[in-house]
Amino acid sequence: MSTREHWVLTFVCPDRPGIVHAISGAVVDAGGNITESQQYTSEDTGRFFMRLQIEAAISKSDFEKQIEKIVGDYQLEYVLDFVGRPMRTVVLVSKAAHCLNDILFRQRSGQLPIELTKVFSNHSDLNDLAKFYGLEFENLPIESGSDKAKFEAKLRDYIKQEKIELIVLARFMQVLSPEFCKEFEGKIINIHHSFLPGFKGANPYAQAHARGVKLIGATAHFVTEDLDEGPIIEQNVTRVDHAASKQALVQIGQDAESKTLTQAIKWFAEHRVLLDGQRTIIFR
Amino acid sequence: MSTREHWVLTFVCPDRPGIVHAISGAVVDAGGNITESQQYTSEDTGRFFMRLQIEAAISKSDFEKQIEKIVGDYQLEYVLDFVGRPMRTVVLVSKAAHCLNDILFRQRSGQLPIELTKVFSNHSDLNDLAKFYGLEFENLPIESGSDKAKFEAKLRDYIKQEKIELIVLARFMQVLSPEFCKEFEGKIINIHHSFLPGFKGANPYAQAHARGVKLIGATAHFVTEDLDEGPIIEQNVTRVDHAASKQALVQIGQDAESKTLTQAIKWFAEHRVLLDGQRTIIFR
Amino acid sequence: MSTREHWVLTFVCPDRPGIVHAISGAVVDAGGNITESQQYTSEDTGRFFMRLQIEAAISKSDFEKQIEKIVGDYQLEYVLDFVGRPMRTVVLVSKAAHCLNDILFRQRSGQLPIELTKVFSNHSDLNDLAKFYGLEFENLPIESGSDKAKFEAKLRDYIKQEKIELIVLARFMQVLSPEFCKEFEGKIINIHHSFLPGFKGANPYAQAHARGVKLIGATAHFVTEDLDEGPIIEQNVTRVDHAASKQALVQIGQDAESKTLTQAIKWFAEHRVLLDGQRTIIFR
Amino acid sequence: MSTREHWVLTFVCPDRPGIVHAISGAVVDAGGNITESQQYTSEDTGRFFMRLQIEAAISKSDFEKQIEKIVGDYQLEYVLDFVGRPMRTVVLVSKAAHCLNDILFRQRSGQLPIELTKVFSNHSDLNDLAKFYGLEFENLPIESGSDKAKFEAKLRDYIKQEKIELIVLARFMQVLSPEFCKEFEGKIINIHHSFLPGFKGANPYAQAHARGVKLIGATAHFVTEDLDEGPIIEQNVTRVDHAASKQALVQIGQDAESKTLTQAIKWFAEHRVLLDGQRTIIFR
Repeated sequence: MSTREHWVLTFVCPDRPGIVHAISGAVVDAGGNITESQQYTSEDTGRFFMRLQIEAAISKSDFEKQIEKIVGDYQLEYVLDFVGRPMRTVVLVSKAAHCLNDILFRQRSGQLPIELTKVFSNHSDLNDLAKFYGLEFENLPIESGSDKAKFEAKLRDYIKQEKIELIVLARFMQVLSPEFCKEFEGKIINIHHSFLPGFKGANPYAQAHARGVKLIGATAHFVTEDLDEGPIIEQNVTRVDHAASKQALVQIGQDAESKTLTQAIKWFAEHRVLLDGQRTIIFR
Repeated sequence: MSTREHWVLTFVCPDRPGIVHAISGAVVDAGGNITESQQYTSEDTGRFFMRLQIEAAISKSDFEKQIEKIVGDYQLEYVLDFVGRPMRTVVLVSKAAHCLNDILFRQRSGQLPIELTKVFSNHSDLNDLAKFYGLEFENLPIESGSDKAKFEAKLRDYIKQEKIELIVLARFMQVLSPEFCKEFEGKIINIHHSFLPGFKGANPYAQAHARGVKLIGATAHFVTEDLDEGPIIEQNVTRVDHAASKQALVQIGQDAESKTLTQAIKWFAEHRVLLDGQRTIIFR
Repeated sequence: MSTREHWVLTFVCPDRPGIVHAISGAVVDAGGNITESQQYTSEDTGRFFMRLQIEAAISKSDFEKQIEKIVGDYQLEYVLDFVGRPMRTVVLVSKAAHCLNDILFRQRSGQLPIELTKVFSNHSDLNDLAKFYGLEFENLPIESGSDKAKFEAKLRDYIKQEKIELIVLARFMQVLSPEFCKEFEGKIINIHHSFLPGFKGANPYAQAHARGVKLIGATAHFVTEDLDEGPIIEQNVTRVDHAASKQALVQIGQDAESKTLTQAIKWFAEHRVLLDGQRTIIFR
Repeated sequence: MSTREHWVLTFVCPDRPGIVHAISGAVVDAGGNITESQQYTSEDTGRFFMRLQIEAAISKSDFEKQIEKIVGDYQLEYVLDFVGRPMRTVVLVSKAAHCLNDILFRQRSGQLPIELTKVFSNHSDLNDLAKFYGLEFENLPIESGSDKAKFEAKLRDYIKQEKIELIVLARFMQVLSPEFCKEFEGKIINIHHSFLPGFKGANPYAQAHARGVKLIGATAHFVTEDLDEGPIIEQNVTRVDHAASKQALVQIGQDAESKTLTQAIKWFAEHRVLLDGQRTIIFR
């Protein structure tokens, strides 16, 4: 029993009868047990999405052979991983500490299944915080277009060399180039400090103050070439009133930002986020 | 295609490998398709719970024959019903209108899959409201123990004659006898005007005011012989501050009450509420 | 003691020292007692806003004389009313019943200090609901521009004749003419079924579905000539997930809509909503 | 103008007409301006509570002389302080880091007007975290009654020597002696990991799991001799479902704990928390 493995399997395929039976058959053949299961059929795209957690006594590669037998019949695109395997993650920050602090604290506390090795920043402010948690911190100032190209080049090398699976923009405040966004599409998560699609672009809190909204929000989304338009992963809001100044909105909003970003990272690292066109499927 | 039926299947059994495969096999044999699926294994009791929605071209009784084949092997206790079939429901009220109004409005709007035929009350205040929605209203005053016995007798007859499946206490304010509670256990839903287990018993708002709590709550629960101790189905809270008087707490709390009770009824009527000892499994 | 009156006084003026002392002096001279008090200084406009509730033994007109003495010195614009006086209100609806039902039920329950005499609609669907609550219901179909002009003319006459103070658009679904909006600016409250400024215009739920947002909202706002741009009074959101279809979003959103609109009406009728340019001050 | 001071004034007295006028008169005499003002009359105790922020050009001690003139007439008990003056605070912890981390991070970010000099703990686990933020950390193991007496003696000396104004129990997990609680009544804030008064005592999460509640809560309260019965300052809840294990409830609850405790500290340090018997008045 001590040698049983615990996997997470996600897949997507065109919807048709028999898929669940075929998959559960592979699990039975592996002497396995389904410990968690969620599914969704998209009315928009006619695709079927599933996420399973499976405990079994055979090896992962043997189970993959079982899965491969049905891949063709059902046009499955699947991912098989170990439950809880820490996802290799790099974080990009600027000056604001609240999101990075939340990520590092929760990772250390065992709440986030990610492996962090390095923080990149265009400023040096968060060097001490990263160091306290034992992380390398690389400060690459961005003052010009060529600075940004250098930043992205260094980051790209690091991602490839270290087999990074997730790039987190924790209030990075810089717009990445379309080429970079495209290259790592589906792997970059950003936190935007508004309830998108309201208040896109810069200074969302100033916009929110001017418009007199009664709730301040934050949106964690995948980064795509279209700024602030990538698929939304999670959103939260906090109630504010007329007495909140622009500065107060910034402070109030920060809690929503860290909470929302950390939640999105957790779901992503647990393979709970699947893409259905512009929309995300979140299997909590 | 137009003759395809849509069923909801819920079951509970001891946890063991192969259940999902066996059930999905029955679905495949029925030419069916699983449109919704949720499962849960209880660490407390070692039992496996599942809820499925299935579309298929055969009749319900033919599908039941498929299910019966695996009932023995897996010790399944199951319920099979049509998705959306209105559950036969009776409502008990006293003087407060807010819960009844919410139930009636939502039932009429098509949001609650229940069939309401009658309202019982120990007061006459809500007669007009029931009539507006075309319901019979029976007023049976309860001033004494024998009155209550008569009330319960009439209600019991009605429940049996009309094959009532759900009894809703929408701020009924009377304690039903242990015998009645036992006889219809798992079929009576009550709304308690506090965040149980805090403030059990009478006057929860006065207790909440005295204690100075910052959130006012409501709890929808199954009624058992132990007053205010039955399994909890749903809870909600609303923020209050020191300025709220006892009377204000009552008004503020009423929104939480109707919302919570209506939600519990909806889940119950959609076969989304299963029992695991004292706890409920809610498959949303 | 039985003859003491209870007033609500709101005013706005340029911010400068001594205002509170001057006002509280008028209260002392009236032998009055301040039972509720809120104030706010706008950094944006440099204006001072205050709302007081005052109990006193003199008549309202005598107290007004006291106030008039300081109006000039402080450039006060003020409103003095009786606490709890029902505000004369007309409601405009189309086909959807949820907002109207919530308003009528709460008004009847004593939660909304408004006096309702009539419902105007371009459809006849809600006639029975209005009648149940004893209200006149006028059905004026709007199929053309001239129909709308007639609708507005009838409504304008009614508002003037009946001294209507508040016009509520409870999912009215028609755009009022700029002239009408301007004439009754600050007196028309609309419920928009999205979290403005996201998803302006028609079909916000379809937009929300397409964009994959994780929270569905509603916004109560004053109607101005600029569609969906008037000052926001209240907003609420409800969490949704990927499984919610466009139709489901509509149903889920309706609770936020009625709750938000009713809250805005209550605050307005209690003189708790003041305007600071495009923003509202809400003295809860 | 650059020499103007900004004060916060709180007071309580028996309710009677003229108080606001008398106080605002003192402000006018000081050439001051009221920048924030809140009041509350308790129906339970007949007492009047007020909190003001005042900007003025005279010195604090001169203003105090103005206030002293009316203290007798109105039986005022008042506190006058500078807005934003950091309150001298000591934190007691055990092993859990989440509350301490949140307090330290927010204090450092300028969100909490407190001055932290030292952390006391019966364990050494959080030594590094305290050191990272430049705080002294004193580890005094508590294995016996005499250990606890020593702990309290050292703490008492420190509090007196350092003029500590606030003692925070950030998941301290030890019960302080009745004498200590009494000596510092109104100055000790504890975070209890449940929505009090539900689940008093030890293991609230286990109790919550067994009872199957749908919302997990946290309560920040003043510590009194009656365990878990002191006046409540703030409460928050988080939604959970049946799938949450006891361990998961602990993790989920921790966010509510840090958020609630930090909020209570902030309000206390800003003189926003007043006591009305067993209830707190919170002037946000």
